[in-house]
Amino acid sequence: MKRNILALLIVFFSAHMAVAAGGRISKKTEACISCHASVHPGIVADWGKSRMARVTPMSAKSMILKKRRVSFENVPEKLARVVVGCAECHTMNPEKHPDTFKHNGHQVHVVVTPEDCAVCHPVELGQYSKNLMYHAYGNLKNNPVYHGLVNSVNGIQSFEDMKTSLKEPDDQTDADSCFYCHGTVIEVKGMETRDTAKGKMSFPVLSGWPNQGVGRINPDESKGSCTPCHTRHHFSIEMARKPSTCSECHKGPDVPAYKVYTVSKHGNIYSAMGKTWNYKAVPWTVGKDFSAPTCAACHVSLVVSEEGKVVAQRTHQMSDRIAWRIMGLIYAHAHPISPDTTIIRNKAGLPLPTELTGEPVAKYLIGAKEQDKRQKTMKKVCLACHSQGWVDGQFARFENTIKTTNKMTLTATKILLSAWDNGAAKGLAQKDSIFNEAIEKKWVEQWLFYANSTRYASAMIGADYGAFANGRWYLSKNIQEMIDWLEFKLKKK
Amino acid sequence: MKRNILALLIVFFSAHMAVAAGGRISKKTEACISCHASVHPGIVADWGKSRMARVTPMSAKSMILKKRRVSFENVPEKLARVVVGCAECHTMNPEKHPDTFKHNGHQVHVVVTPEDCAVCHPVELGQYSKNLMYHAYGNLKNNPVYHGLVNSVNGIQSFEDMKTSLKEPDDQTDADSCFYCHGTVIEVKGMETRDTAKGKMSFPVLSGWPNQGVGRINPDESKGSCTPCHTRHHFSIEMARKPSTCSECHKGPDVPAYKVYTVSKHGNIYSAMGKTWNYKAVPWTVGKDFSAPTCAACHVSLVVSEEGKVVAQRTHQMSDRIAWRIMGLIYAHAHPISPDTTIIRNKAGLPLPTELTGEPVAKYLIGAKEQDKRQKTMKKVCLACHSQGWVDGQFARFENTIKTTNKMTLTATKILLSAWDNGAAKGLAQKDSIFNEAIEKKWVEQWLFYANSTRYASAMIGADYGAFANGRWYLSKNIQEMIDWLEFKLKKK
Amino acid sequence: MKRNILALLIVFFSAHMAVAAGGRISKKTEACISCHASVHPGIVADWGKSRMARVTPMSAKSMILKKRRVSFENVPEKLARVVVGCAECHTMNPEKHPDTFKHNGHQVHVVVTPEDCAVCHPVELGQYSKNLMYHAYGNLKNNPVYHGLVNSVNGIQSFEDMKTSLKEPDDQTDADSCFYCHGTVIEVKGMETRDTAKGKMSFPVLSGWPNQGVGRINPDESKGSCTPCHTRHHFSIEMARKPSTCSECHKGPDVPAYKVYTVSKHGNIYSAMGKTWNYKAVPWTVGKDFSAPTCAACHVSLVVSEEGKVVAQRTHQMSDRIAWRIMGLIYAHAHPISPDTTIIRNKAGLPLPTELTGEPVAKYLIGAKEQDKRQKTMKKVCLACHSQGWVDGQFARFENTIKTTNKMTLTATKILLSAWDNGAAKGLAQKDSIFNEAIEKKWVEQWLFYANSTRYASAMIGADYGAFANGRWYLSKNIQEMIDWLEFKLKKK
Repeated sequence: MKRNILALLIVFFSAHMAVAAGGRISKKTEACISCHASVHPGIVADWGKSRMARVTPMSAKSMILKKRRVSFENVPEKLARVVVGCAECHTMNPEKHPDTFKHNGHQVHVVVTPEDCAVCHPVELGQYSKNLMYHAYGNLKNNPVYHGLVNSVNGIQSFEDMKTSLKEPDDQTDADSCFYCHGTVIEVKGMETRDTAKGKMSFPVLSGWPNQGVGRINPDESKGSCTPCHTRHHFSIEMARKPSTCSECHKGPDVPAYKVYTVSKHGNIYSAMGKTWNYKAVPWTVGKDFSAPTCAACHVSLVVSEEGKVVAQRTHQMSDRIAWRIMGLIYAHAHPISPDTTIIRNKAGLPLPTELTGEPVAKYLIGAKEQDKRQKTMKKVCLACHSQGWVDGQFARFENTIKTTNKMTLTATKILLSAWDNGAAKGLAQKDSIFNEAIEKKWVEQWLFYANSTRYASAMIGADYGAFANGRWYLSKNIQEMIDWLEFKLKKK
Repeated sequence: MKRNILALLIVFFSAHMAVAAGGRISKKTEACISCHASVHPGIVADWGKSRMARVTPMSAKSMILKKRRVSFENVPEKLARVVVGCAECHTMNPEKHPDTFKHNGHQVHVVVTPEDCAVCHPVELGQYSKNLMYHAYGNLKNNPVYHGLVNSVNGIQSFEDMKTSLKEPDDQTDADSCFYCHGTVIEVKGMETRDTAKGKMSFPVLSGWPNQGVGRINPDESKGSCTPCHTRHHFSIEMARKPSTCSECHKGPDVPAYKVYTVSKHGNIYSAMGKTWNYKAVPWTVGKDFSAPTCAACHVSLVVSEEGKVVAQRTHQMSDRIAWRIMGLIYAHAHPISPDTTIIRNKAGLPLPTELTGEPVAKYLIGAKEQDKRQKTMKKVCLACHSQGWVDGQFARFENTIKTTNKMTLTATKILLSAWDNGAAKGLAQKDSIFNEAIEKKWVEQWLFYANSTRYASAMIGADYGAFANGRWYLSKNIQEMIDWLEFKLKKK
Repeated sequence: MKRNILALLIVFFSAHMAVAAGGRISKKTEACISCHASVHPGIVADWGKSRMARVTPMSAKSMILKKRRVSFENVPEKLARVVVGCAECHTMNPEKHPDTFKHNGHQVHVVVTPEDCAVCHPVELGQYSKNLMYHAYGNLKNNPVYHGLVNSVNGIQSFEDMKTSLKEPDDQTDADSCFYCHGTVIEVKGMETRDTAKGKMSFPVLSGWPNQGVGRINPDESKGSCTPCHTRHHFSIEMARKPSTCSECHKGPDVPAYKVYTVSKHGNIYSAMGKTWNYKAVPWTVGKDFSAPTCAACHVSLVVSEEGKVVAQRTHQMSDRIAWRIMGLIYAHAHPISPDTTIIRNKAGLPLPTELTGEPVAKYLIGAKEQDKRQKTMKKVCLACHSQGWVDGQFARFENTIKTTNKMTLTATKILLSAWDNGAAKGLAQKDSIFNEAIEKKWVEQWLFYANSTRYASAMIGADYGAFANGRWYLSKNIQEMIDWLEFKLKKK
């Protein structure tokens, strides 16, 4: 009992501003904390430092629109006048949650989902659901081409009689690899009893757990997760606005946005001077609060000038400033219309937004007018610090890079097609995987690593990355290695 | 009008110390700000936080020599008593600037050049002009060997009839790749009219724009740019002294100084403890202001001890502490005498400072005495924290690494020469590019990536990078792959 | 003389809290500083800012146990009441130090060793000596298999008559590469006279110097070095607790702990929010002092909850929370019992903890019970912020990754064995190096780079690194490239 009081004292101290802001901790959350401050001290202390622990939904709503972080019209009365604590989220929508279980007399669920968050932040979920990220699980799992790539990367290869064979990966491996970022399927697989500090207790057994992928399939059948960016249990806007957060999924050679940022002038300014910036201000004032964009400044945040003019509206549909899709596909192309890309079919019947020759499948892609609109929205951010001539020059260079990298991919594709035609490798016509042989893997690197790295370096002006680090040098070398491989393979035994 | 007043108020507030320091903003700059605080709020706010916005050239000159950041003897009277604002730089030397255009009644140019900066900082430009970096454009573009390398990296390869061919890169691609750091040629290509917030206005159309490469060729025919390090429009000495700034061009495998730094003890100390250091103090006091060197401490800054003794003089000729050239060439060698390296010819008539066998072309390189002098200057910095025995041991190890990496490059070169001799590839004798075939690209990696990475790791004591990350492991493996390639190629068809 | 007084004044100012803490600088240390503040100003100033310069061993001992940083029972009286300065360490145990030399009337040694530090920190040395790191020199140098790997990486290859040959590396190269981290052998090779600011003076000449490797062999025959983590001369616990410190040796593809950390959620929280944490508090309170673990939090530090419960005991035997050895060996396996791994022999007589087929050599490895105990200790740290279900799910995934990566290594090993059997390469049966040919180097990359990177990514939840960055993609591709190489090699000439 004494310990429980101590736990509460600690939390009240951490959340000392709650009273000043007029909020109080609900009785249910007090009950959670009375044990969990002891069982999971880190998580409770982290929440104690958060805005959630200080501000009630009602007081959040009372701010002027530009400063507001909540977007609900109405919020349940029981939530309105307490700060947002353990119970508020983990007992939300219990009827929708198959992972709800009885826990010390409360109906608690483990997996807080975007639907739970949307009670206070419905506009953000509405926007986010139009994102490719929201569909990241299905776009990977339910697209046969991608699924084949996943298998070739995560599967187990064996070697017998001078031949290799591939076994499909197990779920644990997939969850530890591609689906860490794309999201797993979280399902309740039963209950288990565990010995705890409070005696025996029952808890649901979850498949695909842990996971915080952006397109996670949740027990309540909702999609996505807010915590990859709004990290539990501090939910700090500062963290969401800092590029390291995005880097968790956007750092590898397949999507090197963070690496390009760190070698760009923007990234350098952030690295050298960013320690003095204000990452918490809403709205976010360019020049005053920050001097160079982070990922969030260009893609997400509500950015204003000191005069109060809106430079960019807040959006959680990150694609609404993105005219081109430059990564993850064989060729760069206009952004897809539907964030669910499994619906796309090219002439060959493959679920790809271009033909193997690079020709776009226009029907599924945004048109020039929409591209122009999105680019204008993005350019408005650039123009906060750069002249029109500078910005136009930059975008012209980027679009040229899209063309040249597509050409270098086409050349690699032609070599691959020649390998298939000549029997040096087995591909589409032979109904074999297009990802399992060495020449195919080199072809994948041409677009998945080198072409897209070159494009990112161009788009975000981190030229060094696009030259020797992981860009044009390898684009160029890879073609020569592919053709040599073909020659060696075709030599008589 | 109301907005203009607000803009000025904001800037005056940002630059609040200007008055205290006795400076005022010129009428012309006030006119710039009255619009641009609205049109480009980020850039104006950034300047507002800068020293330029607070200190007049006269007050800068009045400081004691060691604390002084300006180096002019005399400065035009009209500049002397105002802070350095938009108009001071962007209307400087109008007669020299073909990019000068009429803008709201002022003769303004877009591209501020080192010649403009040199009105207040002539000594720095004088030193900088003796740098390889100052000649970075010509050294790349006008050296036929390098130019061939650029083409092979940036050019477009095609595939027809089982053969590849190479087309020269377009200017946009070059500007987006090598010349981003080396610098582009900025020329006025005409005027264009644009719709602006203030109605239709005319602006010059610039080729090669944007660019801030260290060896940029400017409209006023001057070379270089100060902003790669002294980033617009804060011009912060703090930023110039932080390693992220240098990393923009010195991070890739061809010149991995930053990567080696981050894995060195120096870099680790900076990363862990650097947040409390004083990066603005002039002079820079070792131990007091900082506890481990950044790039600037060893290569540029005026460093003193707490007793006031000069550890290192400020220099913008970075080469004056560098005895060896360890990157960018086939073999490491004594530093070239002339920063314009296009004048060099080896016995074979190639513009290279060594023969293909590694023998230096002594005539164009500094001698042992000058090397010794430069090394002593560098060692003085090391000795601020290390004993003579430690420092001598370190330099002995570095010079040994130069020898062993040159040997490993010679071995790769011999394999390449054998490939050319045996008809497995086409090279100098066949008047073919020496960079376009796979074996040639592997040879390039031997020296451009692995040998030089190993040397950087040795020079800057980031051993991890020189072992498995990008050094000796690959130096060793690459030779075995080159010889296997040769064997496969020479097998009968 | 005036300069000496100034030097002392500076140091006294820097160490201004010393008096408040009741400590004073010894006469001998005063004598050191009187010259060295001028000769090595950086190092003296750094020490002046350190806790060593402020706290005497007696006052350090007087703190309550949990807050104590020293672990001695008794300390020599002459040390007890002075702060720990130059002389205290550099004149410690003179009789044991062959590097002791006469210096201005004092018996001084250059190389301060763990035995010297253990006068105040004996428990830490006792723990550290049970580490693999403590034996890092011998484990590399005296294991013939590893020694062969070192030679193949650091040795010089030549090319004559279409064949390559390998010469053993020189000591300078080894010291500049593998032994930078593993440690060199420091021996006194004689004395030399140098001109100094104080006239001619004699100093010992040391082999293998400079070095601060974790398993260094010191002149006093002790092993190890404390300064790789507790960096001279600040000896800051803040620095030891920050991940950049560990990164100096744990960043390359052979042991990419730091790279995985930076792409993990833990690393992202550290990067975004860590600037406000308290890295100096002893004990270290989870949630209050820090919100996400650094390397030290999981592997070394005394971590407590706000209620004062111990989450993890301080340990300098980092292996006591590590159940598996996931790097540096062909297959992952249970941790070795003895930190001296040179005693291990598998059935084939090789000093390896597994057979070439992956079967563990159980006799030398900890059993399931000890593994379970270590994993429980580690899980206690995780549970400070995560639920049991989350933690168990994470560890199950990690152990699955150990299995799958071992399988992918076995496949590569089978291809290599086939190459040896077919005469495509020369290996164990031919008594040839197993590391010198291209196919062997690819095999090494399979386990030394890709399998272990995949495991680190799994263990530390930096999935991105284990997918495309340096993990499963390459594990998969490498097998296809190995089999193609074998095919090309076996084709008739």
